[in-house]
Order: sequence, then structure tokens, then C-alpha cells
Amino acid sequence: MNKRLEALVNWLNEEDIDVLFINSTENVYYVSNFHTDPHERLMGVFVFKEAEPLFILPGMEVNQLKDAGWQYEIVGYADHENPWDKIEAAFASRNQTDAKKVSFEEEVLTYSRASAFLNLFAEAEVIAAEDQLNGMRVVKDDSEIAIIKRAAEMADYGVQVGVNALQEGVTEMEVLAKIEYELKKKGIREMSFSTMVLFGEKGGDPHGNPGNRQLKPGDMVLFDLGVVLDGYCSDITRTVAYQSVTDKQKEIYHTVLKAEMAALEASKPGARIGDLDTTARDIITDPGYGDYFPHRLGHGLGINVHEFPSMSHLNDGVLQEGMVYTIEPGIYMPNIGGVRIEDDVLVTKDGCEALTKFPKELQIIE
Amino acid sequence: MNKRLEALVNWLNEEDIDVLFINSTENVYYVSNFHTDPHERLMGVFVFKEAEPLFILPGMEVNQLKDAGWQYEIVGYADHENPWDKIEAAFASRNQTDAKKVSFEEEVLTYSRASAFLNLFAEAEVIAAEDQLNGMRVVKDDSEIAIIKRAAEMADYGVQVGVNALQEGVTEMEVLAKIEYELKKKGIREMSFSTMVLFGEKGGDPHGNPGNRQLKPGDMVLFDLGVVLDGYCSDITRTVAYQSVTDKQKEIYHTVLKAEMAALEASKPGARIGDLDTTARDIITDPGYGDYFPHRLGHGLGINVHEFPSMSHLNDGVLQEGMVYTIEPGIYMPNIGGVRIEDDVLVTKDGCEALTKFPKELQIIE
Repeated sequence: MNKRLEALVNWLNEEDIDVLFINSTENVYYVSNFHTDPHERLMGVFVFKEAEPLFILPGMEVNQLKDAGWQYEIVGYADHENPWDKIEAAFASRNQTDAKKVSFEEEVLTYSRASAFLNLFAEAEVIAAEDQLNGMRVVKDDSEIAIIKRAAEMADYGVQVGVNALQEGVTEMEVLAKIEYELKKKGIREMSFSTMVLFGEKGGDPHGNPGNRQLKPGDMVLFDLGVVLDGYCSDITRTVAYQSVTDKQKEIYHTVLKAEMAALEASKPGARIGDLDTTARDIITDPGYGDYFPHRLGHGLGINVHEFPSMSHLNDGVLQEGMVYTIEPGIYMPNIGGVRIEDDVLVTKDGCEALTKFPKELQIIE
Repeated sequence: MNKRLEALVNWLNEEDIDVLFINSTENVYYVSNFHTDPHERLMGVFVFKEAEPLFILPGMEVNQLKDAGWQYEIVGYADHENPWDKIEAAFASRNQTDAKKVSFEEEVLTYSRASAFLNLFAEAEVIAAEDQLNGMRVVKDDSEIAIIKRAAEMADYGVQVGVNALQEGVTEMEVLAKIEYELKKKGIREMSFSTMVLFGEKGGDPHGNPGNRQLKPGDMVLFDLGVVLDGYCSDITRTVAYQSVTDKQKEIYHTVLKAEMAALEASKPGARIGDLDTTARDIITDPGYGDYFPHRLGHGLGINVHEFPSMSHLNDGVLQEGMVYTIEPGIYMPNIGGVRIEDDVLVTKDGCEALTKFPKELQIIE
């Protein structure tokens, strides 16, 4: 049994939970090395306190699951079959029909699937699986770190492609297309979220969308992008100036950069996570920009582009070696423009390493 | 109030349901014209039998929601706030705290959110919202059909780009990158699913993944792709031969094409939906390929790339004018190759129209 499944079985025994259902694409990948998203079709792993694990998925994916190395029972089903009937039979063959305590991802499993699962038992107490799975996933092992580093390198490359594509009159969408094309040619099949390329006042909305806005001198240009590589995400933001920059733009840029660097500086094992947000936020609030930084400092990064830890000022957790997260303060001035600077950060033994390495000093692109 | 919200309020009154919570990105877009995916953050619309609708979403998106034309109350929240506290207050201000019967999307709402919602009331019966919402969405209005037609045209264009990119030694990923690049340049921000470009034996797996397989003479090439345009999806599959074709490949191709054309022929108002699958499946089963067609005939298409109606032989529903779905029979021979032909189909007054128009006669690309 792989170490992750083993850790889950140990947890089930410690907590006296009879069975755990893992349904999210991400956690299924984490425990099985099999990455699939069968859309609305049911897919997942059942892990038992005292029986062999079980994988349920559409029949047409059974061979791919075997190729990924799954060693235990596989229950495939056709589109016209009810997977829960087959699950019930598999539970019966394991004598696992009288669970008293079950667990699943409460923030993932739909009400309908949770109801079907709970319907297998007379009456079962529900324990959320999130804390356990997130707790395992929040500290990355060496193989995961190696993948994320490569994903971060690809994100750096994406920004470089974007910067190279800037010229007067080009649209946000044209630059975006160029970035994704060059990344696809390097083998990237999926971006970790919708790529953002925002010019001028468009960057003043923290959730603006790229369109046909054309680049003109004096625009700040905000890139926010990431790739999925071997199932792991990267996420970088850089902001550059096109041809010229005002004193106000410079002040905003340097305020954000100072906040970002301070949060990096504060990143080390034992630091309270919420303090990183506070450190960065104070630097932005002091000169009066606090109202224009409306989001948390960042988020954990791994199989999900947003995972734990949450880099919010409320987070009382402490940093541990192997955690990976974003630091991404920003200042967004409505109708004027925005600056955000974001790195992917790995907590090391003594401090941290920024895995995204694209330069952060203010660049004025000619 | 827009017609869709009005129809929902009428439904709530008919069924005596106090409040409906719409949480899926797709249904929120359908009722509000606002398209957003705030990741793990809560977002949605509450529709009441006897009170004004309410939109809950992250504070940083409030302005975009207003721009989309939302006329009613908006409750924004910051990352450090619990949105359910604000929802509870908004319910109290509407005197909507003693609901007896509530509705939500049982196949979308997570167990955790469903619990938080149900926790607002002493004890409430749950009615699934899916039948009502799917029933409204399954028949497209003129504005929706106009968008899907444009999305289908873009899918045709994507296949043409892919065919043009075929040359000996090119990889699946290179062709895929070219397709998506050219579509992005036309303003497409999102594909409706991961684009498939599969060469030779790779196409023999109905859920194969593109990689570095290089094109060689004698390969069949399978393209499966679609775009999201103004929130609506298209989905096309075409299979072409590269440089040469064997009699066996020809036989498979023409069997699939015959099945596809027969299902198109059977598409008209009043036809039993399941009969389309049966009609196509019989044509594939007759010459002995039944085992190599392991999936349903197709799926509804609209805001979701997979929605109702399900084009399964079990579906006893009947076709109505304005329904849009895919017809996509295939034959997949392990280690040899696969053929699938897929159109997006609109049911018209007297029959149907294939919205995807890329030619279907067997093409041998030189």
C-alpha cells in the first residue's frame, strides 16, 4: 500500500471511522496517482478501516486506472448502470454494510452523492475528511516540490512570452493567446486558471477579464497565469509598465513590491501564517492604499491552485518546512490601474525560496 | 424581473417552496446573466416564493455583478467573513427564517453548504432543483441558439486548423497547441473541455490523452474539441486519415458515419430520445462492432458541455423543438485506432439542423 493510503488507514483506525470516500479529482490523484475528471459521472476511492480499498469509475477508464498502478479492486460501470448499486454490492462482499462512522469531503461531495453514500448504512455519523487530507497535502514531499518547481519555471516562461509580445495596439487576448500557445508547445495541456492579461485601467479591477483592449504607452500591464504540470499548479503575477510610468504608478508599484518582499522575508518555519498577511497589509495601508487591497495575501498551492494554507490574517497556523503558497499583494485603483506581484513560495529549513523567479524590479518595456 | 427568474418564482409558488438556492456557475449565469467562478468561495442566488431575490458573492465581484444588470439585493463578503452569517441576516430582514420547504441543486451543492443552508431553518424539506432548472434549460431560446451556432462555427474552424497542421512527424500536442492558439486569436477564452488530438492507436482508447505521439502515414487522426463562447459550449469530433487508409479503417469509418447519419435522420420533435441511441447502436452492432462503442450516443449541450437530455437508449423522453445535443457514435479498436464522428444538433420544427458543418465524408489528408 502506498504511504498516503497507509496514512489514511491509520487515521481511520485512530478515529474509529469505518470507511472514507474520496471523491475529488485532486484527492483521488493524491492517493492513487490516477488523474481523471469524468465530468458528471461518479468516480472515487473508498478506503476502509478493515478492508481493501476500492475504486469506482466509469468502465471506459478502467484500463487507464490499471496503467496508473492501482493494485486493488476496481468497480467499473456503464452509463446506463447505477454506480451505487455496484458500490453496495462491493461493500457487502467486504462485510462493510454496518458502518457507524463514515468520512468524506464535506466541501466536495454533493448533497446527492452524500445522501446515496449515507443510504448504504442504517445510521452513520459523518466526519469531514478535509482536515485529514488537507493536513497531509499541506506539506509537500520532495517529489511534489520537484514538480511544482518545474511548474513555476513554466509560469516564469509564460510571463516572459507575454512581455515579449507587448507592442502598441496589441490586444489583451492576442498576448494571452501567444502565452498559452508557447506553453502548449512546451507540452502544457492545461493552465491552472484562466490566464489574465490586463492593460491600463483594466488592471484596476482585481477580477477583470481580458478582452480587446489595445495596449498604449503609459499602460501598466498585469499578467496572472499558471500552468498545470503533472497534476500540480503554479501561479505567478507580474506587472510591468509599457513605455512610460508616472510617479504615482511608481509609488504604487514600489509599495506592492515592498509588501511582497516583506512577506517573503517573514516566511520561515514557525512563523504565524496570519502575520505574513498583516505584515504585507500594513505596508500597503500605511500610505493609504488599504482599501485597494481587498483580498487575502495568498493561498496554498499544489494539486489545487487554491488549497491550504490560506494566507489570511486570521490564520493562526504556523509555517512548516515543505509548505508551498502564494504571496500576492496588490493595489487596484478603479478606473486607473492595478499592480499585483505574486510569487510561489516554498518554506525551507531556515526560511523560504521563491520558486517563481521572473524579475520583480519595475520594468519599463519599450 | 427577467423571464427566467419569473418562471422560477412561479414554480416556487406552484410547489409551495419557500426558497431556492442556485449555486452552480451555470445556473447562476442562466438566471442572472452574470458569469463567475469564484473558486472555493461561496456564490449564488436565492430566489424566494414571497420576497425579492438575493445574490451572495465575494465583495470584490460586486461591481461586475452590477455591470451584468442584477437589479436586486447584493450581499458581498470579504475573505475573512462567514458568508452564511450575512445570508442569515438577509433572510431575517425578509422574514424568511421559517421556511418549511426549500430547494437547491442536489447534484451541485456540497454537503457542507447544504448543511449550512438547512441550518438556517428549524426543519425543512428538501426538493431537488435540477428537474426544474434542467427542464427550463433543455429547450433553448433564440438568443441561446444564436450563440451556440457561433460556438459550433468556431469548433468547425478548430478542426480545420487541426487538419491543416497535419504533417509527418508533428506531435499530437503540437497540433492541439496550434488549434487552441488560432481559436484564442479569434477571441475564444476557454475550450469547453480538454482538446483531444489522437493519432493512430491512441484513438483506440475512447478516453486517451494527447501526448508526444508523432504522426505517420496510415494513421487515423481523431479531433474532439469545443469552445465556450458567451457562456455556451460547442463540441465536435471528426476523424480523418493521414496519407493512406486500409479497407478495415474505411469499413469502420463508414459504419460510424452511417450510424451518425441515421441518428441525425431520426432527430425530430416527438421522437423518443432513447431511440436515437438504439438506431445508431444497431448499425454499429450489426457488423460486430458493438463491444467497441462503450458509451451513450451523446449529451445535451448548452451552458454545460454535458447537460440534458442524455442521449442514452434508456431515455424515454421525447425530442422538442429547440433542444440541442450531440450525436457522437464511435468505434474504438484497442491498439489499432478509433473513429468518432460528432455533430451538435438542433431540433427544428420539422427535423433537425447539424450546427457543426465540417465535412464528414472520409478525408485522406496528404
